Amino acid sequence: MKPVKVGICGLGTVGGGTFNVLKRNAEEIARRAGRSIVVEAIGARRENPDCDTQGTHITADIFEVARNPEIDIIIELIGGYDTALELVMTAIENGKHVVTANKALIAVHGNEIFAAAQKKNVMVAFEAAVAGGIPVIKAIREGLSGNRINWLAGIINGTGNFILTEMRDKGRDFADVLAEAQALGYAEADPTFDVEGIDAAHKLTILASIAFGIPLQFDKAYTEGISNITAADVQYAEELGYRIKHLGISRRTESGIELRVHPTMIPEKALLANVHGVMNAVLVDGDAVGQTMYYGAGAGAEPTASAVIADVVDVVRMLTADRDNRVPHLAFQPGSLSEMPISPVEEVVSGYYLRLTVNERPGVLAKVASILSESEISINAIVQKETHQQQVPVIILTQDVKEKLMNEAIVKIEALADVNEAVTRIRVEHL
Amino acid sequence: MKPVKVGICGLGTVGGGTFNVLKRNAEEIARRAGRSIVVEAIGARRENPDCDTQGTHITADIFEVARNPEIDIIIELIGGYDTALELVMTAIENGKHVVTANKALIAVHGNEIFAAAQKKNVMVAFEAAVAGGIPVIKAIREGLSGNRINWLAGIINGTGNFILTEMRDKGRDFADVLAEAQALGYAEADPTFDVEGIDAAHKLTILASIAFGIPLQFDKAYTEGISNITAADVQYAEELGYRIKHLGISRRTESGIELRVHPTMIPEKALLANVHGVMNAVLVDGDAVGQTMYYGAGAGAEPTASAVIADVVDVVRMLTADRDNRVPHLAFQPGSLSEMPISPVEEVVSGYYLRLTVNERPGVLAKVASILSESEISINAIVQKETHQQQVPVIILTQDVKEKLMNEAIVKIEALADVNEAVTRIRVEHL
Repeated sequence: MKPVKVGICGLGTVGGGTFNVLKRNAEEIARRAGRSIVVEAIGARRENPDCDTQGTHITADIFEVARNPEIDIIIELIGGYDTALELVMTAIENGKHVVTANKALIAVHGNEIFAAAQKKNVMVAFEAAVAGGIPVIKAIREGLSGNRINWLAGIINGTGNFILTEMRDKGRDFADVLAEAQALGYAEADPTFDVEGIDAAHKLTILASIAFGIPLQFDKAYTEGISNITAADVQYAEELGYRIKHLGISRRTESGIELRVHPTMIPEKALLANVHGVMNAVLVDGDAVGQTMYYGAGAGAEPTASAVIADVVDVVRMLTADRDNRVPHLAFQPGSLSEMPISPVEEVVSGYYLRLTVNERPGVLAKVASILSESEISINAIVQKETHQQQVPVIILTQDVKEKLMNEAIVKIEALADVNEAVTRIRVEHL
Repeated sequence: MKPVKVGICGLGTVGGGTFNVLKRNAEEIARRAGRSIVVEAIGARRENPDCDTQGTHITADIFEVARNPEIDIIIELIGGYDTALELVMTAIENGKHVVTANKALIAVHGNEIFAAAQKKNVMVAFEAAVAGGIPVIKAIREGLSGNRINWLAGIINGTGNFILTEMRDKGRDFADVLAEAQALGYAEADPTFDVEGIDAAHKLTILASIAFGIPLQFDKAYTEGISNITAADVQYAEELGYRIKHLGISRRTESGIELRVHPTMIPEKALLANVHGVMNAVLVDGDAVGQTMYYGAGAGAEPTASAVIADVVDVVRMLTADRDNRVPHLAFQPGSLSEMPISPVEEVVSGYYLRLTVNERPGVLAKVASILSESEISINAIVQKETHQQQVPVIILTQDVKEKLMNEAIVKIEALADVNEAVTRIRVEHL
């Protein structure tokens, strides 16, 4: 069969990796796909020193690539929102199929992109947008298609997981590890996207849509970062038999879909608790299959390229399929998306780890306990750490409680004269 | 679109689970697939008390189902070799697509089944044949299609993993735990298939084919069971920082493909070492993606049904695709399968754990060490366990060595006058 011609837009880390893997594994890929995949053109402002692009047409004008009549599939790897959106829309307008690794673009503009693609009868594939090289979108969308998904929870930001892993392994503080991660290139100069959970929320938004069949609703995601976690919290969690992970969690409840990214304490024996460093993993609970987990590198040139190329091969396979039989962008047929609302975070039920700083004085613990008791919050453990100072940390582990009730209790606790500083709280999930 | 009509042959554990999940999740599945999946007929010798089959045609003659002109897809869940083969061939002959959970059938007769399917232009899908509900065939075949796979290693028999987990957790002996597993229904009355690694070898044979693009060659698989592992081995492994898992391992080497199932010591921190009880997991190393892992329930009614139904949905999607664009049965195009030989196990390189029973007498350790040294086998650790008996266990951990050299050294060690009983050996992999 005749080769499929692709255009790569963006030749940075992922673009370079994609070019190189397509070239290196050309034969292996053709043995699988039954036809060759040829890079017809590259749109990039500069060369990538890791790539031998000799013999491939390179232009600084990515839109030229998107309009090139020779090209079947546009691979968008420039990142960001505005130009990427314009590029993808131009490609669709020109009847090209699109493969992208851009989580921000899909999470924020996916609904309109998919509608445009539907109209022009082209495919948009985005496996690389979530969890890098792990084929988790394919697993949920196709591999678990017989299930009603109950919930999913994932470590879907490698930078955050690297920081938490280092804090635990070496007893170091957040700021200290972040600086090292930046030096190592694991964290950006502006780490907000990673450490405040925005990147994870982009990915979670996508996972939730394909798991539950709801439109992409990034603006409804609850996002909390890891910058307030101290070395002491990490250690206390450990003493209680837990680990702190920055999880994206989405759960189907009777009243709506939970969509939340926050530091979470999980039992140390849980498989997710043993996913270390920059690795990613997504745990999915389906009504038939039970729990399955998908683990691997969540970022990097070639892991991401692996997902991009798998998408290209998939698109190639579906080129001749009747459009109604293609895998829908969001796993469910566009007309079958559900209107289940995203639940406000106040409705979420979880256990809590609380860390208070109190004056060491008789009766303080009793007052705190009675506030919790009045709010009908059951205490699993309460520990006053010994120090030789006047202010001592108190650690409380609660049973499951609705977030709204916990918020009210915390306001009351913080109002106590002997409680200093804000209460630190970390949600506890037993998964 | 008009519904897809399936026939289920076999209404035991998996057949019953498949019927029930198809019924319970009919709406969710149709929202994804874009059309309904209807059970047109069931072929089964008896009813399943867990299934409400009212309104569905049941016949004791499975071949009637395979020939039913109304049916698009035959789901083979009767298990075993001969009748299953005849059923699948009859279905193919009648132009039906086939979905099966039968690992033995695919591993042993897959090549001829796929050839027949190719000729009749029908699909044969078998996700449920390996690792139950985990979509690992899809992951390797489609999700990692951009990679050259280097190796894979998996816990792919739940019974064996349950036994090893119990031996470790409770310090119990093999025979003892096996009896319990049989009582719990985790192990068959005749446990040979599970504990001797035959079931795992069936699954490994399939995984190796789709990973490396080679024909199915079950007869070349090296198979070693767990019945010789003692509680002491489990404990010594633990003391050395390892765990014993019954792994299926397939690796691409320059001289051929390794295909082997045997007890294996792996570092306790490895994610695979933390897969407990009846759970399954497969670790895959690809040149672009690095390591990814897939975890979940490897057996059971509904987990297996989950994979069966995913296959049905996949077949439905590909019904209208050009046949050359369908996902090939063994991941690689039939004409592109490689002739890489399966390596004899004597060529495999790994570390070794050896347990010797020796007379407590000066110079024994030195003699053993010098035999290993003469074979150029480096020792990582050698420990003589203290007992109050005349015969004491000696534990040796070696560096990587070719199996043939180790075999020769063991023959010499066993010939020593002060070494009693056969040497126990467990391969060590660092994955």
